[in-house]
Amino acid sequence: MNIRAAQRGDEGAIMDLIRGLAEYEKAPLEVVNTAEELGIDLFDEKVCDALVAEVDGMVVGFALFYTNYSTWKGKCLYLEDLFILPEYREHGIGSKLFDEVVAIAKERGVRRMDWQVLDWNEPAIKFYQKKNAHLDPEWINGRLFFE
Amino acid sequence: MNIRAAQRGDEGAIMDLIRGLAEYEKAPLEVVNTAEELGIDLFDEKVCDALVAEVDGMVVGFALFYTNYSTWKGKCLYLEDLFILPEYREHGIGSKLFDEVVAIAKERGVRRMDWQVLDWNEPAIKFYQKKNAHLDPEWINGRLFFE
Repeated sequence: MNIRAAQRGDEGAIMDLIRGLAEYEKAPLEVVNTAEELGIDLFDEKVCDALVAEVDGMVVGFALFYTNYSTWKGKCLYLEDLFILPEYREHGIGSKLFDEVVAIAKERGVRRMDWQVLDWNEPAIKFYQKKNAHLDPEWINGRLFFE
Repeated sequence: MNIRAAQRGDEGAIMDLIRGLAEYEKAPLEVVNTAEELGIDLFDEKVCDALVAEVDGMVVGFALFYTNYSTWKGKCLYLEDLFILPEYREHGIGSKLFDEVVAIAKERGVRRMDWQVLDWNEPAIKFYQKKNAHLDPEWINGRLFFE
């Protein structure tokens, strides 16, 4: 198992995993992003970064993150997605990916790392509790959709 | 009443409002950001943007936002803070600030605008409901603090 920064050419494999995660989260039709757009956002405009986990040369998981901002804490790191193919779970791959993102957050000198977890996703909640995360259900997500 | 983009020199007034919001949200000690850092983030590194609302030349409210990323929707706009001094509420200032941020999101061509609201903040929840927002309590915030 190998964890490395995503590079040009990985966007198709990452997009397949994004669709897999959307199915797990019961919202496959919400995915309108494309591999081409993701490639531009990751490698040209650099609005986000990603790590991939490979097993035998195949991408089986990824973490995608970007710099977010807290008026209280200044620059933070937001972990948008962390996903491992179901058949590759329970081998510590997700844990290593998460730890690597934490290391990047510390390297960047941010004061906080943020993410969200669905309230019914018990395996993920247990995973984050083992990482000594603060889990706070007090906030409600507000959204406006433009298309 | 005038709404305009924040400019260098506003960071002290915005930081005062940020501290006011933190007190309202019952977490004043969590604010470690400073006016100097905020000025760098807004005007030098440009990791976020802000609008201010002025009445008689005094800054009485602000909105702070940045580009965030959804693996499902691509680039989005995240509204980190929207705050009006209590004594200037009920005059539509917050509504105009919010609408201006929505207009900027549309100009930037993002597919979604995101924010969060505390589950006990009924005036804010009603405000966002009037804006036809989707309010979703299904997600729990996860956080790691590094200092």
